[in-house]
Amino acid sequence: MTPHPTINRDRLFAQLEALNAINRQPDGSCCRLALSDADRQGRDLLVSWMKEIGLEVRIDRIGNIVGLQSGAASTAPVMTGSHIDTVATGGPLDGSLGVLAGLEVVRALAEAGVATKRPLAVAAFTNEEGVRFQPDMLGSLMYAVGFSLDAALQSTAADGTKLGDELVRIGYAGKAQCGEIRPHAYVELHIEQGPLLDRLGEVLGAVEDLQGISWQEVTVRGVSNHAGTTPMSLRHDAAYCAAKAAVFVRDLAKQMGGSQVATVGSVRLVPNLVNVIARQATFTVDLRNTDETLLRDAESELANFLQDLARDEQVSIDARQLARTEPVRFSDQVLSLIERAAQDLGCPIRRMTSGAGHDAQMMARICPTAMIFVPSVGGISHNPKEHTAPEHVDLGANLLLRTLQLLANQ
Amino acid sequence: MTPHPTINRDRLFAQLEALNAINRQPDGSCCRLALSDADRQGRDLLVSWMKEIGLEVRIDRIGNIVGLQSGAASTAPVMTGSHIDTVATGGPLDGSLGVLAGLEVVRALAEAGVATKRPLAVAAFTNEEGVRFQPDMLGSLMYAVGFSLDAALQSTAADGTKLGDELVRIGYAGKAQCGEIRPHAYVELHIEQGPLLDRLGEVLGAVEDLQGISWQEVTVRGVSNHAGTTPMSLRHDAAYCAAKAAVFVRDLAKQMGGSQVATVGSVRLVPNLVNVIARQATFTVDLRNTDETLLRDAESELANFLQDLARDEQVSIDARQLARTEPVRFSDQVLSLIERAAQDLGCPIRRMTSGAGHDAQMMARICPTAMIFVPSVGGISHNPKEHTAPEHVDLGANLLLRTLQLLANQ
Repeated sequence: MTPHPTINRDRLFAQLEALNAINRQPDGSCCRLALSDADRQGRDLLVSWMKEIGLEVRIDRIGNIVGLQSGAASTAPVMTGSHIDTVATGGPLDGSLGVLAGLEVVRALAEAGVATKRPLAVAAFTNEEGVRFQPDMLGSLMYAVGFSLDAALQSTAADGTKLGDELVRIGYAGKAQCGEIRPHAYVELHIEQGPLLDRLGEVLGAVEDLQGISWQEVTVRGVSNHAGTTPMSLRHDAAYCAAKAAVFVRDLAKQMGGSQVATVGSVRLVPNLVNVIARQATFTVDLRNTDETLLRDAESELANFLQDLARDEQVSIDARQLARTEPVRFSDQVLSLIERAAQDLGCPIRRMTSGAGHDAQMMARICPTAMIFVPSVGGISHNPKEHTAPEHVDLGANLLLRTLQLLANQ
Repeated sequence: MTPHPTINRDRLFAQLEALNAINRQPDGSCCRLALSDADRQGRDLLVSWMKEIGLEVRIDRIGNIVGLQSGAASTAPVMTGSHIDTVATGGPLDGSLGVLAGLEVVRALAEAGVATKRPLAVAAFTNEEGVRFQPDMLGSLMYAVGFSLDAALQSTAADGTKLGDELVRIGYAGKAQCGEIRPHAYVELHIEQGPLLDRLGEVLGAVEDLQGISWQEVTVRGVSNHAGTTPMSLRHDAAYCAAKAAVFVRDLAKQMGGSQVATVGSVRLVPNLVNVIARQATFTVDLRNTDETLLRDAESELANFLQDLARDEQVSIDARQLARTEPVRFSDQVLSLIERAAQDLGCPIRRMTSGAGHDAQMMARICPTAMIFVPSVGGISHNPKEHTAPEHVDLGANLLLRTLQLLANQ
């Protein structure tokens, strides 16, 4: 039996560094907002690297970049990938690791002279972060479910530019139909962006599901009044209602337990003055659960609470949905292969949940899919302090290699 | 016995209207920010009216305008007054009523040929609202306690202009020493700016005390983290702490009862995003009570609560005082005279508390002082909808006349 091929850690880190040097900010953060000039430079670099290792590069109409091993066009490829766009103050690994580790796997296998039955493909999806254009995960959404292309191209940034125009401007308005290559399976390597593996001192995660996400914006309309002259019993205080709701959702999540989390992360008061009872409060509620029924329960508990609160405080309360995704359950078959590959590497692996959204959740709609997580030190992400120990990156990339190899030999 | 002299309602309203026509905004609101061009026009009008009715006009070094009846300079005058500056979207009566009703009293007594033993004086104090320059009630503070003049003149507006320079620019940097005329007594007529009289269907209030005010700005520093990937038990959520504190102060005020009120009117979260646990929350707490001991109790309860919260949530919490005034108790002697005057007018009067700050609270430090309130419809003030029924304004002004007459004949 030949030894397993392994990735070249130095080469992988050199490419990560070259990509992240583009438009690096004074604080060290990565800023390659989707379809910006910095994103173009990153894409150009990626495309050149794909071509260097013999991948055929296909750009589709939403700008997704797919590098495909040639030679076996009639067979569905095994795909890996992620995204190379970042938030405005991003870290070095979020997204980029998945794409560049994919390239390194292709390279390492080729160097070792190891062929697979199915070709491999490496994808970089457009606008995963959703910072510059809405919605997030737009490229993989288009790839997997063909969300209206025209609507997607009309998506408008805060500066008024349209996604379609920016694709043309930076030279990535491709001709391929979105999703024309339907993979045999999809596996994505990503940093956890949460604290679990780091806290437990573990290195590998097999992501079995992804939380359903419910985002609501709640607006409370009360009565503005003087903070000194208005007796407590005569108040209709919008700020108090927002505070009461924020405390409620925390209590609700703690009481529900399991995977339920709940966050009020944004509050705006009007007029927002020290001595004026707020007449309006607008706040967001982020509810997540891996179980759709429980997520609906949480939404319903919140709705009932807000209804009672509006009655008790004699204010009006309106909630509108900002975003809603159902939980995603990844493929047991792919998860088993990931676990088998980890066993081959002699490394324990934990089944876990992703709290963040990923391109893999879109791909799960069209092919057997799962993800591999490596730790985020301190759970920190979307931040220049985002960090994963190099040996953990190395192990994650080797697990990706071994998993893709197993899948591509099916 | 001769009939009581009474004020001329039409004349009073005509002057209010002439003053409020200056820089009136499209929505009908009054905008005469302290020492602005609009304030200068109002001052010029006021000074011309004072001279018309034979008052000697004295401008002091902080720009306070005092119109003094001549002839009895050796006797301490009985003073009335208020302010004519407004907030940016002010109503027609806040402050202006007290000043112009004072003029009307002088005029009505003169017309009726009624002389008093003591001269009357009408004051318009500089920068009562505190919108353009800090602190509020600056003119009366300077008048009563001689807060450092140099510091006051250096007070700087948001646009960078200095109070002292603006006084010179608009021609109201007077030569008189602040507070050089020490009154025998001070009575101020004002709208309630709260809902009590209006709710009770009553017309007159004798203000016996004024709440002590404690303003704090509280800053919570927690840890920013992903709203999806961070388990509830690992959060250090600054937004939650702010919400918990806002609910606490409401509960505290309800539990303390009496005159205690508590308001969180301003909250700022960082980064204030739907899917990010806030790393910082800055919020204000406005506590008021007419009893200094109870106000200190409330402050102490809040401090204890915040200390426990910081420990429980493992966040840091710092509070800094933005403003602190002790409760003011007005003169029983003046209050009795106000009540006697109301009886003369055949109108019931309620002893009450002021929830707002007034120039009278400064004057109370140097002479026997009290206030007369007339209703604010709906408790609305600092708003173009601020309104008091004309017959209630009329009754308030006649009560002021009668009270000043009684005081000036002591």
